[in-house]
Amino acid sequence: MYYNGRKLGLVLSPSEHTVTLDQLFNLFNYAGVFVFAATGALVASRRQLDIVAFLFLASVTGIGGGTLRDLVLGATPVFWVQDPGFLIVCTAAGISTYFTAHLLESRYRLLLWLDAIGLAAYCVLGAEKSLALGFGPIVAVLMGVLTATLGGVMRDIIADEPSVLLRREIYVTAALAGSVVYTGLQTFHFNPALSALAAASIALFIRGGALCFGWSMPTYRSRPGRTEKELKRDGIIGSD
Amino acid sequence: MYYNGRKLGLVLSPSEHTVTLDQLFNLFNYAGVFVFAATGALVASRRQLDIVAFLFLASVTGIGGGTLRDLVLGATPVFWVQDPGFLIVCTAAGISTYFTAHLLESRYRLLLWLDAIGLAAYCVLGAEKSLALGFGPIVAVLMGVLTATLGGVMRDIIADEPSVLLRREIYVTAALAGSVVYTGLQTFHFNPALSALAAASIALFIRGGALCFGWSMPTYRSRPGRTEKELKRDGIIGSD
Amino acid sequence: MYYNGRKLGLVLSPSEHTVTLDQLFNLFNYAGVFVFAATGALVASRRQLDIVAFLFLASVTGIGGGTLRDLVLGATPVFWVQDPGFLIVCTAAGISTYFTAHLLESRYRLLLWLDAIGLAAYCVLGAEKSLALGFGPIVAVLMGVLTATLGGVMRDIIADEPSVLLRREIYVTAALAGSVVYTGLQTFHFNPALSALAAASIALFIRGGALCFGWSMPTYRSRPGRTEKELKRDGIIGSD
Repeated sequence: MYYNGRKLGLVLSPSEHTVTLDQLFNLFNYAGVFVFAATGALVASRRQLDIVAFLFLASVTGIGGGTLRDLVLGATPVFWVQDPGFLIVCTAAGISTYFTAHLLESRYRLLLWLDAIGLAAYCVLGAEKSLALGFGPIVAVLMGVLTATLGGVMRDIIADEPSVLLRREIYVTAALAGSVVYTGLQTFHFNPALSALAAASIALFIRGGALCFGWSMPTYRSRPGRTEKELKRDGIIGSD
Repeated sequence: MYYNGRKLGLVLSPSEHTVTLDQLFNLFNYAGVFVFAATGALVASRRQLDIVAFLFLASVTGIGGGTLRDLVLGATPVFWVQDPGFLIVCTAAGISTYFTAHLLESRYRLLLWLDAIGLAAYCVLGAEKSLALGFGPIVAVLMGVLTATLGGVMRDIIADEPSVLLRREIYVTAALAGSVVYTGLQTFHFNPALSALAAASIALFIRGGALCFGWSMPTYRSRPGRTEKELKRDGIIGSD
Repeated sequence: MYYNGRKLGLVLSPSEHTVTLDQLFNLFNYAGVFVFAATGALVASRRQLDIVAFLFLASVTGIGGGTLRDLVLGATPVFWVQDPGFLIVCTAAGISTYFTAHLLESRYRLLLWLDAIGLAAYCVLGAEKSLALGFGPIVAVLMGVLTATLGGVMRDIIADEPSVLLRREIYVTAALAGSVVYTGLQTFHFNPALSALAAASIALFIRGGALCFGWSMPTYRSRPGRTEKELKRDGIIGSD
């Protein structure tokens, strides 16, 4: 049921490449957990919380998306229970943020960029683990998107921060692009390492462009929803 | 461990009825996923998000409650990983909402009614899957309620919308009624199809009445809670 | 895969002590579920919801943290599916709160204290179940913290209440202390019952001190984060 880098390597590539491929996905995994954990810690800093709350938010954000992925795929116990090294990575991200966050001019800008890197790493990892466990391309694509985005969504909800998901700039689309590219290339048996690098680069490029230049997709004849107060005024929902 | 319509049919009904019963629960399942997905897409429209965010919120809302049910019952991988047809249904709901939401005078009213239909379908499906997996009536009733309500709760939390759960009109009670009726009728071995239709009708009737006529249940000597500001003023929680 | 008190007793203690140890952890478990359920019901009272919504919020809060623990550890079906007695405890907590909440001068103060008791019980139970399932100390400590805190976090998010987690007074630290103490003592094979009592007492003492005297930990050169409006003004995030 469970999965680790070594097994994946044996399945997907000839033995002389095993270590390299393992190392690449491990790097993706640790990097993704580290940057997401750092965004959690930056939120703790914005909220002026103490060191333990830093570590808590760092851990929840760092491992949140991957935990959900593993639960849904039935790959329990989840990845960080099998390899507690990820919790040490979260702790390192939390502590280093705790001692350096005051040096940043804008913590929120760094948060957005780290979140973009994490998104790029995890849209690949989510799709990759689904494929490695034998699931089909539709599931792999959605799992990539969910894994890449829901860690950040949980962070914003728990810390009551402005949601990255609800802003106009492209967010989910970047994760979808990376997820589709990786899944597509794997369906045609391209080299997993190159596929992963290509897919993550595309996701980071799209999300980075959205952050730098405000890229957004057109909305089709949409208008803002009424607020709760206006809905009551217009009789759509009853007044209390 | 896992479950599908065919197996259920073999267990619960003589072979000549198998297809009908299978079809009924599949219809409930697809209908529930479709209407919940449409409510997610309507929220995306209210927030003026792009097409990919429509699909994302449609998918999360459509499959959220059922995913939680399967995780808690240990029926992993969850239903939409086993049958990705549900993701296609979510995609269809998202796309059709994207191109038609501007035609509606009130998106929120439609959202509430679709949510009511989804609630009616899922309070039955949650109870039914629990019973089919061999769990007792108390678990089945709660699972029906959780499955029917938590998809909508997740949608409202992720999209920062007014919560259907916290309003005065009857909401959880409708899910409870449907769940109790289905579980009760099944305990006495009534026909599953008729039980399902009766239970869903009752849940829809109650929630529909709440939407049309503002039905609510009495509250026992309740008074509103103090706000965070008032709690600080009165020394219940410390000031920052 | 699953676990119950009897098995634990057989593993951790000589047979003549089995019942006592079982009873202690069962007491912790039922007490933890009861007090968390009561905090959920108190929130329902603050929101002036009806009796069914009381039971719903009581159940979700009472079993939320433990459910997450069991899902992550792969111990499914989760504890309350195996022993529906916990749902009866939640119902009892909901009903008794429904009929007595108006007698309280401050529901929120009681909520905070019950939450503290639940936190103390669950930081031990989370660590204990992880160790009993054979996981190492790092996982046990984090699982104790997650189990103790995330039920309350879910309650506050679902009911849109001020988050206990984001306040300055010590919260996560108390759970961490209890979790570390229990895990540490068990690593050195101390008596499980005494370890549990010591760890829970320490957690309750720390959180209680925070509630009574506003104990908080120093924050290192932290400054408040800009609001969404200020972030837009300063060009960190784009305007809509």
